[in-house]
Amino acid sequence: MTSIISSQNPASELQQAIENLKPNKIFIIADSNTSQLCLPSLKEECKAVHDAILITIPAGEENKSLSTAQTIWQELEKGNATRNSLIIALGGGMITDLGGFAAAIFKRGVHIFYIPTTLLGAADAAVGGKTAINFNGLKNELGVFRNPDKVFISPLFFKSLSEQQFLSGYAEMIKMAFLFNPEMLLEMLSADPTKIRESTLLQQLDYCVNKKLQITTEDLYDHGPRRLLNFGHTAGHAFEALCNSRNQAVDHGTCVAYGILYALILSHLKIKLPTSHIYQFNNFLHQNYTALPIGCADTQKVCELMSHDKKNNDSSHTSFILLQSPGNPIADCQCTTAEITTAFELFNDLR
Amino acid sequence: MTSIISSQNPASELQQAIENLKPNKIFIIADSNTSQLCLPSLKEECKAVHDAILITIPAGEENKSLSTAQTIWQELEKGNATRNSLIIALGGGMITDLGGFAAAIFKRGVHIFYIPTTLLGAADAAVGGKTAINFNGLKNELGVFRNPDKVFISPLFFKSLSEQQFLSGYAEMIKMAFLFNPEMLLEMLSADPTKIRESTLLQQLDYCVNKKLQITTEDLYDHGPRRLLNFGHTAGHAFEALCNSRNQAVDHGTCVAYGILYALILSHLKIKLPTSHIYQFNNFLHQNYTALPIGCADTQKVCELMSHDKKNNDSSHTSFILLQSPGNPIADCQCTTAEITTAFELFNDLR
Repeated sequence: MTSIISSQNPASELQQAIENLKPNKIFIIADSNTSQLCLPSLKEECKAVHDAILITIPAGEENKSLSTAQTIWQELEKGNATRNSLIIALGGGMITDLGGFAAAIFKRGVHIFYIPTTLLGAADAAVGGKTAINFNGLKNELGVFRNPDKVFISPLFFKSLSEQQFLSGYAEMIKMAFLFNPEMLLEMLSADPTKIRESTLLQQLDYCVNKKLQITTEDLYDHGPRRLLNFGHTAGHAFEALCNSRNQAVDHGTCVAYGILYALILSHLKIKLPTSHIYQFNNFLHQNYTALPIGCADTQKVCELMSHDKKNNDSSHTSFILLQSPGNPIADCQCTTAEITTAFELFNDLR
Repeated sequence: MTSIISSQNPASELQQAIENLKPNKIFIIADSNTSQLCLPSLKEECKAVHDAILITIPAGEENKSLSTAQTIWQELEKGNATRNSLIIALGGGMITDLGGFAAAIFKRGVHIFYIPTTLLGAADAAVGGKTAINFNGLKNELGVFRNPDKVFISPLFFKSLSEQQFLSGYAEMIKMAFLFNPEMLLEMLSADPTKIRESTLLQQLDYCVNKKLQITTEDLYDHGPRRLLNFGHTAGHAFEALCNSRNQAVDHGTCVAYGILYALILSHLKIKLPTSHIYQFNNFLHQNYTALPIGCADTQKVCELMSHDKKNNDSSHTSFILLQSPGNPIADCQCTTAEITTAFELFNDLR
């Protein structure tokens, strides 16, 4: 069972956790950014990692690959890693996905701690056990379900994030609030996220991460309640794929934010979600997020991409997570092409 | 939960299992031998696999590799495999270990059935969830714990085995009998294994496989009772490694058989196993197994190799599974170098 440690002072928590685990060797997997921006302060304040062996991965999604995983395995062998060794993955979702994968496969599993250094990584990738690498041009094509031993959540590392990187992670937290916590949703949507206090952020993040842990522990393999977490993602993934295919990359969180707006509109059409929620969230989007370079001319492409979402096993209909009201999600809402298209037209009119 | 299907007619059982599962695509992973020796009869008698996509792997342990796994993943993609697809691994331990690994990783897990075609594969590799590939010259270095959906056990495929291949698998069954079933042990040691009736073999095999499933289900990750299954293997692996290093390869089962003899001698020294069990088993070995090309001159090397067994986490002592009597194994018996050496000298005198 993963434990989540939320703290303003992750180094001392890490020190304690290592003293308890007593690994025979420690390896740190970081990318070329986090090894410079985050590792020095961690090393300074956590004695236990002074002599850790550093494995640096070039930053960038293209390095979430089998060949990078092979490099990690070779470095682990060179450093005489055993099943009693510990890997610390220090980075965004790319590093925790990749490090988690490498750790799960090496000798059928060595200990791993995640220290997410981005808000998106903390709010989304770090919990739920979905380790992954890309393969043959396909995203997250290879992987296993396996939770890390511990996840250290701290706003300390988020200071180096750009506003856009921050907002990308915040979108995943808004998703959790829409699904499970109307009170927190109101709090989030009525404030300026870029001016949020560190303690408030940690509190909200702690809620999101623990809620996700609870759901994914009940349903690790994604057959039941975990599917709710796909709220906003069927459209979000379609937007992301379309923008990527045109070399107009938009970050994941922004696509998810617009995917949530789309899901709210579809929720109104299908199960009568009051329109006030749509307008409120649209205002929040306008005030905080960059525009999405997608319009009416993309209707057919977007609708096709949504029906090919990998969570949809059956090709004759497209299934969505919709909301009756904030806090009341409904899974597996089957929508027809006409409904999907109408919602997309309304989505374009609204923005 | 894996289910084990023991049958004289595996094709009809397979047909039934596929009708129940309703996979959208079926892939068969076989090696260059089993695709010729075992697949035609299976295809003839099981309609459901008529149109299965065949992925043939060159036979041989050197192909239990990451590069072969990549080939499998590419073939799965080419055949549009999804999480609802089924892989059937038809072969010995190499094919079930490799196929199980590839299936566990692809899209974080697709369905897999094992049809072991060797006695060793059926008695040992097929159950327990230890999928694996070799990496960087190290055996089973990469892998995950994951059980197949179903295992089809049938003596039908063992007809093509050589006597030596048969005896290799039989050694693993004798191990199970020593550990858990004194009555079956007596039956096994007092008969000529090469003249065993098919129904008797299936009965014994069924016991071994189900007993292994029970133990490994209780302790998938090898922290507790599962370690008992290492009986005979600390010495067996040392013999295997030494013979391999001299290019005098001896099959796994034969090494395990001699490893059992060694463990019985050590059991007598440490915990007073009556010597009659040693003599009885030594006679059985003499009558049925080829000689082991290892002698007094190898004492130091063998003892060193035993202390490096990967199941031994602590380097200051070597831990063995020993027997108080057949059916009464004791885990984690710590032995000194002197004891290990004495037992090896007695082992050499006896043979």
